Amino acid sequence: MFEQLIQRYGADVDAMMRTVVERLPQDAPGFAVMARYPLGWVDEHDQPYQRQTGKRIRPLFLLLCNEAAGGDWHRALPAAAAVELLHNFSLVHDDIQDDSPIRHGRPTVWKIWGVANAINAGDALFSLAYAALESLSSQVDSETVIKVWRVFNQTNLMLTKGQHLDMRFEHQDKVAIADYITMITGKSAALLSACAQMGALIATGDDRLAERYGEFALNLGIAFQIHDDILGIWGDPDVTGKSVATDIISRKKSLPVLYGLENSQRLHKIYQQETLEDADVTEAVQILDTVGARDYTREMETEYYERALAKLAEANPQGNIAESMQSFVTTLFQRVY
Amino acid sequence: MFEQLIQRYGADVDAMMRTVVERLPQDAPGFAVMARYPLGWVDEHDQPYQRQTGKRIRPLFLLLCNEAAGGDWHRALPAAAAVELLHNFSLVHDDIQDDSPIRHGRPTVWKIWGVANAINAGDALFSLAYAALESLSSQVDSETVIKVWRVFNQTNLMLTKGQHLDMRFEHQDKVAIADYITMITGKSAALLSACAQMGALIATGDDRLAERYGEFALNLGIAFQIHDDILGIWGDPDVTGKSVATDIISRKKSLPVLYGLENSQRLHKIYQQETLEDADVTEAVQILDTVGARDYTREMETEYYERALAKLAEANPQGNIAESMQSFVTTLFQRVY
Repeated sequence: MFEQLIQRYGADVDAMMRTVVERLPQDAPGFAVMARYPLGWVDEHDQPYQRQTGKRIRPLFLLLCNEAAGGDWHRALPAAAAVELLHNFSLVHDDIQDDSPIRHGRPTVWKIWGVANAINAGDALFSLAYAALESLSSQVDSETVIKVWRVFNQTNLMLTKGQHLDMRFEHQDKVAIADYITMITGKSAALLSACAQMGALIATGDDRLAERYGEFALNLGIAFQIHDDILGIWGDPDVTGKSVATDIISRKKSLPVLYGLENSQRLHKIYQQETLEDADVTEAVQILDTVGARDYTREMETEYYERALAKLAEANPQGNIAESMQSFVTTLFQRVY
Repeated sequence: MFEQLIQRYGADVDAMMRTVVERLPQDAPGFAVMARYPLGWVDEHDQPYQRQTGKRIRPLFLLLCNEAAGGDWHRALPAAAAVELLHNFSLVHDDIQDDSPIRHGRPTVWKIWGVANAINAGDALFSLAYAALESLSSQVDSETVIKVWRVFNQTNLMLTKGQHLDMRFEHQDKVAIADYITMITGKSAALLSACAQMGALIATGDDRLAERYGEFALNLGIAFQIHDDILGIWGDPDVTGKSVATDIISRKKSLPVLYGLENSQRLHKIYQQETLEDADVTEAVQILDTVGARDYTREMETEYYERALAKLAEANPQGNIAESMQSFVTTLFQRVY
């Protein structure tokens, strides 16, 4: 499914992003490479890099929603480029904040150029996201441009809040499940929701329709994150490419773990240990199974997934593309657990 | 002069900024304080803070240009709030990048909440700057909003480039004077130029007039920075509140120093020493005087200052406000050296 979308939209999204990134002042050549590198176009020496890095899910989804709402997707390309640039801005800053040395199998921006430069590279990508969105004004009327811009601004405020909560929760002994949902809503579902809203707005300028698309995608985004949380513990290592119970090893406070901590004193104790041995990880997973964390998490996923489908039905996507949309949603949840 | 402007515009700028900052999601109280603190409204415990921190030069200047171009300044308040929020975003990130522990006599954001949170606080201020600008759509027509937005986007790209060059120059043995001018143009004059352009656009929607205002302010901003460079070495400590030759002590590659390095091998040697004794600082200042760095820098300042005045004459500000504008410009350069 992703392959079909990439085939349909991929090259144009990439071309639009490249045009925008060229707007970076070219009289400081050592600067633009720090924006091109995280986008996967070049290596750290500004030489072409061939391996695909990000999956470009957000721009593809935006264009899909645009078509589903009856739009000519070419007109929505500036917005598609904007959400991908924004996503990459957040990754560059995230990697500094999480002290992550690797992203997409390569050293992170801060690891290569240091924290100060990486902050600035992220800021440049943030600015470029807005520069991309601005080109929308050659495609649709000014009122619609401003509506789309408003959605984008609101999303950025939610993103920084989500990031704040995520960082805070790391140092918090107890995190309520409701707060966790708020965090993942801001940190990942909000941007997916913005993609759907922006796509629908560019197609129609219709606020009510855009809202339905937005709610569809918001619930989809939350369900998707919860799905990820399940994979992080029970995912098949052959499929996920990660080790078994990877989220337990990193003590991530994902949804099943939060449920487990609420229902098992023993799990609490394990999580407070200085180091986790293999036996501790095995026991933690057993506890989660015993207290019903897996079933609980699956039910939550299903709940948000079904809400998403209900909102999608209300949005009532049109034509052939309705099928692609359904197929896109299904594919997102096909990863095995 | 500043007092008059603050009296005329200050309270409304502040009120507009507060309205915008309230758009930060309120369900994460520990988050908004990190945006309110650098704006000088609260202390680190979110309690009211009474001392004035920033001088709000940029929003005051924007409103002044707006009036000079014949506008009703109340309509330009969203843009005034936007430039001040943007300026503060850049300070918060700058302080991390420069490892600066103190700003306006208080610990910096990263010093209190750590680097990860400070990056996010800066990102939130950046997002808020756009949220502020968005409110312009209730004041002027959509086409003008988009023009103003375009200026703002372009400025942000220049800011990140200026920041990049500034950081790069620190580690560079030799910096050409032309590159130095490019750096200060991006890092500080570009935003002042944006203020003038945005003010004029909101007043008239006239691109040509806005361009003149923009060129006036760009040259003014460069002249102002050069003036600062003179103060950093020859400024009267009683007036500047800093020690004598403070820029020599910190080995800042300011304009007189760059000129000196180009014209004195001895100064080069001094700058390469591990530590600088008082005698070295005295000798460095003597060298700068001997090679004519002070006269050179003053001439550069005068050149940009006069270009600014010529562009201002072309912009042809109207009414009483023309006098205030002249007085504003003069005041900027009254600081003694």
